[in-house]
Amino acid sequence: MIVVMQAGSEEQQIEAVLERLREYHLRGHLVRGEERTVIGVVGAAIPPTLKEELAHFAGVKETLRITQPYKLVSRELRPTDTIVDVRGVKVGGGSCVVVAGPCAVESEAQIMATARAVRDAGATMLRGGAFKPRSSPYTFRGMGEDALRLLAQAREETGLPIVTEVMTPNDVDLVARYADLLQIGARNMQNYQLLEEVGRSGMPVLLKRGLSATIEEWLLSAEYVLAQGNPNVILCERGIRTFETATRNTMDLNAVALAKRRTHLPVLIDPSHGTGKWYLVPPLALAGIAAGADGMIVEVHPDPDRARSDGAQSLSCENFAALMPKIHAVAAALGRTPMVEVPER
Amino acid sequence: MIVVMQAGSEEQQIEAVLERLREYHLRGHLVRGEERTVIGVVGAAIPPTLKEELAHFAGVKETLRITQPYKLVSRELRPTDTIVDVRGVKVGGGSCVVVAGPCAVESEAQIMATARAVRDAGATMLRGGAFKPRSSPYTFRGMGEDALRLLAQAREETGLPIVTEVMTPNDVDLVARYADLLQIGARNMQNYQLLEEVGRSGMPVLLKRGLSATIEEWLLSAEYVLAQGNPNVILCERGIRTFETATRNTMDLNAVALAKRRTHLPVLIDPSHGTGKWYLVPPLALAGIAAGADGMIVEVHPDPDRARSDGAQSLSCENFAALMPKIHAVAAALGRTPMVEVPER
Amino acid sequence: MIVVMQAGSEEQQIEAVLERLREYHLRGHLVRGEERTVIGVVGAAIPPTLKEELAHFAGVKETLRITQPYKLVSRELRPTDTIVDVRGVKVGGGSCVVVAGPCAVESEAQIMATARAVRDAGATMLRGGAFKPRSSPYTFRGMGEDALRLLAQAREETGLPIVTEVMTPNDVDLVARYADLLQIGARNMQNYQLLEEVGRSGMPVLLKRGLSATIEEWLLSAEYVLAQGNPNVILCERGIRTFETATRNTMDLNAVALAKRRTHLPVLIDPSHGTGKWYLVPPLALAGIAAGADGMIVEVHPDPDRARSDGAQSLSCENFAALMPKIHAVAAALGRTPMVEVPER
Amino acid sequence: MIVVMQAGSEEQQIEAVLERLREYHLRGHLVRGEERTVIGVVGAAIPPTLKEELAHFAGVKETLRITQPYKLVSRELRPTDTIVDVRGVKVGGGSCVVVAGPCAVESEAQIMATARAVRDAGATMLRGGAFKPRSSPYTFRGMGEDALRLLAQAREETGLPIVTEVMTPNDVDLVARYADLLQIGARNMQNYQLLEEVGRSGMPVLLKRGLSATIEEWLLSAEYVLAQGNPNVILCERGIRTFETATRNTMDLNAVALAKRRTHLPVLIDPSHGTGKWYLVPPLALAGIAAGADGMIVEVHPDPDRARSDGAQSLSCENFAALMPKIHAVAAALGRTPMVEVPER
Repeated sequence: MIVVMQAGSEEQQIEAVLERLREYHLRGHLVRGEERTVIGVVGAAIPPTLKEELAHFAGVKETLRITQPYKLVSRELRPTDTIVDVRGVKVGGGSCVVVAGPCAVESEAQIMATARAVRDAGATMLRGGAFKPRSSPYTFRGMGEDALRLLAQAREETGLPIVTEVMTPNDVDLVARYADLLQIGARNMQNYQLLEEVGRSGMPVLLKRGLSATIEEWLLSAEYVLAQGNPNVILCERGIRTFETATRNTMDLNAVALAKRRTHLPVLIDPSHGTGKWYLVPPLALAGIAAGADGMIVEVHPDPDRARSDGAQSLSCENFAALMPKIHAVAAALGRTPMVEVPER
Repeated sequence: MIVVMQAGSEEQQIEAVLERLREYHLRGHLVRGEERTVIGVVGAAIPPTLKEELAHFAGVKETLRITQPYKLVSRELRPTDTIVDVRGVKVGGGSCVVVAGPCAVESEAQIMATARAVRDAGATMLRGGAFKPRSSPYTFRGMGEDALRLLAQAREETGLPIVTEVMTPNDVDLVARYADLLQIGARNMQNYQLLEEVGRSGMPVLLKRGLSATIEEWLLSAEYVLAQGNPNVILCERGIRTFETATRNTMDLNAVALAKRRTHLPVLIDPSHGTGKWYLVPPLALAGIAAGADGMIVEVHPDPDRARSDGAQSLSCENFAALMPKIHAVAAALGRTPMVEVPER
Repeated sequence: MIVVMQAGSEEQQIEAVLERLREYHLRGHLVRGEERTVIGVVGAAIPPTLKEELAHFAGVKETLRITQPYKLVSRELRPTDTIVDVRGVKVGGGSCVVVAGPCAVESEAQIMATARAVRDAGATMLRGGAFKPRSSPYTFRGMGEDALRLLAQAREETGLPIVTEVMTPNDVDLVARYADLLQIGARNMQNYQLLEEVGRSGMPVLLKRGLSATIEEWLLSAEYVLAQGNPNVILCERGIRTFETATRNTMDLNAVALAKRRTHLPVLIDPSHGTGKWYLVPPLALAGIAAGADGMIVEVHPDPDRARSDGAQSLSCENFAALMPKIHAVAAALGRTPMVEVPER
Repeated sequence: MIVVMQAGSEEQQIEAVLERLREYHLRGHLVRGEERTVIGVVGAAIPPTLKEELAHFAGVKETLRITQPYKLVSRELRPTDTIVDVRGVKVGGGSCVVVAGPCAVESEAQIMATARAVRDAGATMLRGGAFKPRSSPYTFRGMGEDALRLLAQAREETGLPIVTEVMTPNDVDLVARYADLLQIGARNMQNYQLLEEVGRSGMPVLLKRGLSATIEEWLLSAEYVLAQGNPNVILCERGIRTFETATRNTMDLNAVALAKRRTHLPVLIDPSHGTGKWYLVPPLALAGIAAGADGMIVEVHPDPDRARSDGAQSLSCENFAALMPKIHAVAAALGRTPMVEVPER
């Protein structure tokens, strides 16, 4: 059960709820967001009458009993699709947004060329890594703030909102000054301090599923962000780790369809990480859209063979341009409207 | 390397090849099929000149060096798509066949009703289990030959070719007398005696991927069938076993796209077993077609809640009929022609 | 629930039970073993009074309600350890049997040398493959009956009972004529016809866990054998398939300890397949014994680098001899008595 | 290849190395630790003569070519076991340390009672969570600094060094003021900023393996800590995520044995998280020691049924005391000396 307090509820109203919970030997976990304050009620035995009882307390907006362990992200709580606005691009509700760009920003020339190419082919957002999580400390870890500046420059020229990863709580302010959508990478899906920090930022968040995270854990991680009062979370399935070694990961499109059923949040797919092979990106991108994803994020590089990271899974600009009409065709076949028309050339 | 002998090559010609291999301390594995005889050459060190050397031997049709461990199923050996003919239904080469029917044949009324319903909705083949592999010895294991007779009766009325599983070598003859397409289930993907027996039968074979089989192992199992001279193998991805428990299995559509690239054999999907939940079947069916599958096999039951097995993952006839136009729309969007038009109603 | 019939119960007594089940809209699965006949009762709703009701039927020995899906193998049914007698070697109840020998029998010299070496080092049984399941049809698949003859010869000289795999129902009679313990390989753990055939043989059976079989499925497969009236099943954990690629499989010693708790059957470990690397065999063998396994089966080859299969995971005779005293030391430290003392040399 | 600079090498010496690398179109990743500075050399093509060439540069201590992607943690670099000193307790080199205590510190009474009980039973360190990573934002997340103070109090009374988790870079200073050994939890194994921060702290670090981390990734994460000049890393295997649901995780003792072979760092096991069931902790603890682990960390609670977290996998004090003599017996059987004798009682 959760107790949602009214905006501007007073401390003593909150304390009254907590006190009542203590009387029942329950614990109240107070989660203060910027926009609203929620009290999660947990304990061995919640009395059946408690829901109604607390609903009448001063300052309480509503009380909710929810069968899933996640509450705020659940469709039980909110049956209609959440639409997240990323600098004017609407994500969710059957959208077909396409986020494209290089794994990492490598140079001005590289990011500007890619940005123009993907915009011309119909992409609606630009991706590019500034801070890269890398298994080895000896490999390229991104250009940092220089990359952020170049992304902003690319946005200025192309009009595309920009998405980039933030890896640690201390960097949230910095990255938020440049980016339109903060990406939480798969390795950080359960970095709870980071989730709470991006929650507090109020910025749109792209939350990638962890390599071995269950769907339930993924939604619970989204719950951490929403519990801070930030409803702007976009989920992203990017492949899970299985026994199969012929592909880098295993795209779990079951998870896309199931997440769409369980939560009101938008869901994207990342067929680049999901497959690890550029030639598998087009079929899996199409598959993900057909499975119900609200769009995709895909790695595109003007010269994949020379990419400093993830070259094997990056589409060339030409291959990306060839994929886009098929994406739109599948989306149209299923009655969905792509967010941006492919321009005449 | 493999040495393909000419049709009608003589024993002494084969022996001459084997003798030469022995001289090089190599082993020749003789695989006699009905249509052709192949000698697989294995050993620590194959001399670089051997390929050309053996090509000139009497009775040798050709010698092939193949980089993959599987040979006859490889696109390296045969770049063009194999089309398998199942009593007139062509599978492969971008087809969009739809095999539908109950998990198990339960009664005449059940199978006849289902057969009519799926035919009317546009299915091109009928499935139905007669012999069911079950984890527990205490559960329903199928109606056996009675089920085969009912399937034949349903074929007679509807014209739909029938698919059913054979579980053990001794049953191949029996099942082959009724079925048009012999299914090898996931648990039997590495039952090599069974693979060889269906190979010898010459019948079309539907080879499901094992729960934890790599793509390479799956193709090697198909190789067992082809090595018997039977080229009529259709692969089927039906979900793999992963850590995720929210779905019964994890559909691996990476595997569909990669198999289409690595082998010339047709590939179907089974979204019923791949998801385990009827409400996930439509999105994953669409996803599989979009990923490049040559069709699908799907469980349909007139009364899923009363099904004796797999009810939770069976579509009702109505839900199946509602799915079919979407399947055709996605196939058409990608330029593929469904094998059967949905009839006017 | 299961209904155990008295030995010699009559057909009409069985039919009376089945008839009563039908009245309750339940199904009775009749499993006739050589030693006893069991009726498994399944259905949507078993009346709470049924257990007592049937207990009074003529010919009924007892009725049992069992919480696990497996019944005959459950410790709920039989709390004391089963001891399986393999030609005089007792397996189970805290035994520490050591089965050793080559992956495959390759020649008389090889198997005889190995048999002598492992006996001298303290092994209590000899293993050796005659029929080998191989992923590829082009690799060595064993010497067949010749290998069985050589194993029998090795038994004659060394006194060691012999273990070898049987792969298909039609071979059970042949293999049973030579072997003392029939091995069901991991790939065949859910080959139900084979399980029933070895069940009917009455021979001791070594049932390996499938690569991706849950512990519950493994025990249900054992249930298939016991349901035929053959209680002589020894389980064997041989590693499961996970995402880890640095080892061939992942030894699941949790499964050993849990199986020992859930079932009365003996459990062995196979650290050769469980690790895939000879230098990991000793630590994992010791670990398995410490975890409570009743012994181990381990691959030993006089010249591992020249082994025709599994050389990378085979111990040399010297390394095997060096391991044995440690095995006995760990067993002794935990108060268990090895079945055979290491002979003086 | 890595270039290790002499202590006190000057900036211009480092720059000279970097400059030479640039001439070869290589990149030098400068990793400054407190004790030493290392330059990791990466790039497409390292000239074969470079190793010798740089060895003669001023300020260079040595140059090393290492076949594994991890360098400083590799046994190739350092063949002898690292012994980590945790406030006088030596971990590594065949030690048998036992770290015990509750999942989370819950109260003064709870932690003091546990500390006394585990010390009396022979534990050599005390564990207890102050900051708890939890999948759900609505569950108990630890007592924070209050817990740290209670742990310090328990250390004062019992003399046991204390281990506790740190979850985010900003907390490293705080936790390091109290703890003797900083734990990095499984979810944070690839939280690189945190790894670098604990690296800079110079404190002993207990690095748990991620749920789906390969052994190579685990060692690379340790490399992040060592690359900061902090050699005091203890690895900990705590179970991986697999398809098996009967246990919480799957203990991977292959990984323990392989890690001991690949790295010079100590390796502990955590059978509590590795199994998730208290009754499987003893057999798996024994198994881990037999597999070669340098000790274990185990959850003990005076009243497991009332624990606020992980009660199902916590040993009672009595069960822990009963386990310890067996641990010592297995260690002794394998010729290892436990760090602390069980006291007379």
